[in-house]
Amino acid sequence: MEALKEKIRQEGRVLGGSVLKVDSFLNHQLDPEFLNEIGKAFKEMFKELKVTKILTAEVSGIAIAVMAGLHFQVPVVFAKKTQSLNLDPETYEGEVYSYTKQQHYKIRVSKRYLSNEDQVLILDDFLANGEALKGLYQIVEASGANLVGTGVVIEKGFQEGGKKLRAEGREIKALATILSMDHGDITFL
Amino acid sequence: MEALKEKIRQEGRVLGGSVLKVDSFLNHQLDPEFLNEIGKAFKEMFKELKVTKILTAEVSGIAIAVMAGLHFQVPVVFAKKTQSLNLDPETYEGEVYSYTKQQHYKIRVSKRYLSNEDQVLILDDFLANGEALKGLYQIVEASGANLVGTGVVIEKGFQEGGKKLRAEGREIKALATILSMDHGDITFL
Repeated sequence: MEALKEKIRQEGRVLGGSVLKVDSFLNHQLDPEFLNEIGKAFKEMFKELKVTKILTAEVSGIAIAVMAGLHFQVPVVFAKKTQSLNLDPETYEGEVYSYTKQQHYKIRVSKRYLSNEDQVLILDDFLANGEALKGLYQIVEASGANLVGTGVVIEKGFQEGGKKLRAEGREIKALATILSMDHGDITFL
Repeated sequence: MEALKEKIRQEGRVLGGSVLKVDSFLNHQLDPEFLNEIGKAFKEMFKELKVTKILTAEVSGIAIAVMAGLHFQVPVVFAKKTQSLNLDPETYEGEVYSYTKQQHYKIRVSKRYLSNEDQVLILDDFLANGEALKGLYQIVEASGANLVGTGVVIEKGFQEGGKKLRAEGREIKALATILSMDHGDITFL
């Protein structure tokens, strides 16, 4: 997606070699019209698929998934990181390893909102080490739903997640793939 | 908003007297087209205001705020609950008390994304005890921005938040106000 690459070039900030901050439009401040374009691009990318539900993970997947949901005209479910009063006790779970916190945590989806009749498209903002997607795949498998595709806004191609998951047979598409960010220069695939 | 009341009547579940679960469309599963209607209703409700930025809090404010942002054609910022690599060190802070966890926590917005030139509309999913809004007001005040309005999707009028905040001079509008949920019967204003 050319407009996305341009936006990353203009507004992205590279910190410490491997952190790309796109918090001006994607994960702190949100640019609604641009996210709507991202939703449209996902629809175009996966237009051949029959999708009944979009699955993402809180927090930063929500805005892009709901915009994509507008174009796919299907419900969106986001996996929750914390167990709260607002979550049903009956859930499907996935396990995610956090490199920054160096610990595992669970993500959960209520059994009400995913079933073995669903055709699930997983969407997320970033693919880096692949841990969030791994947890989402576990949830889809636990539900018996059919996984039809995976899309991410930005893949950091120089990290291991994409390689690892594709080696396991996962098909993952990215709207923009970054090959390197050396010295703050962002090179796209 | 009549369609919202109807949706709450049809899909809302009352638990334990004071918990209203609307996780089929608002805060776990999301109904993108309906949330788009909510965004439109907020635009209609606040059409007289000059808004330059919409402020909400993660997690459950994000989907409605980004949809509203589409109709207001302004950026959205969501306050973060956790300090992470992805958040700038320079932030405006607000303090929120969690009744379920019985402890205070901070919510934060990067100083990049709110300034004393902004005309801020605060949007959130629920108004119950008013703690989340209180934290958001602190952030707006710390930034020097001008607060132009506050909108919530659902106000639980039988809890204290709305009364307390209005007594402090806050003007808050709700798309649906619930007066009581006794025996699971939801009565609207």
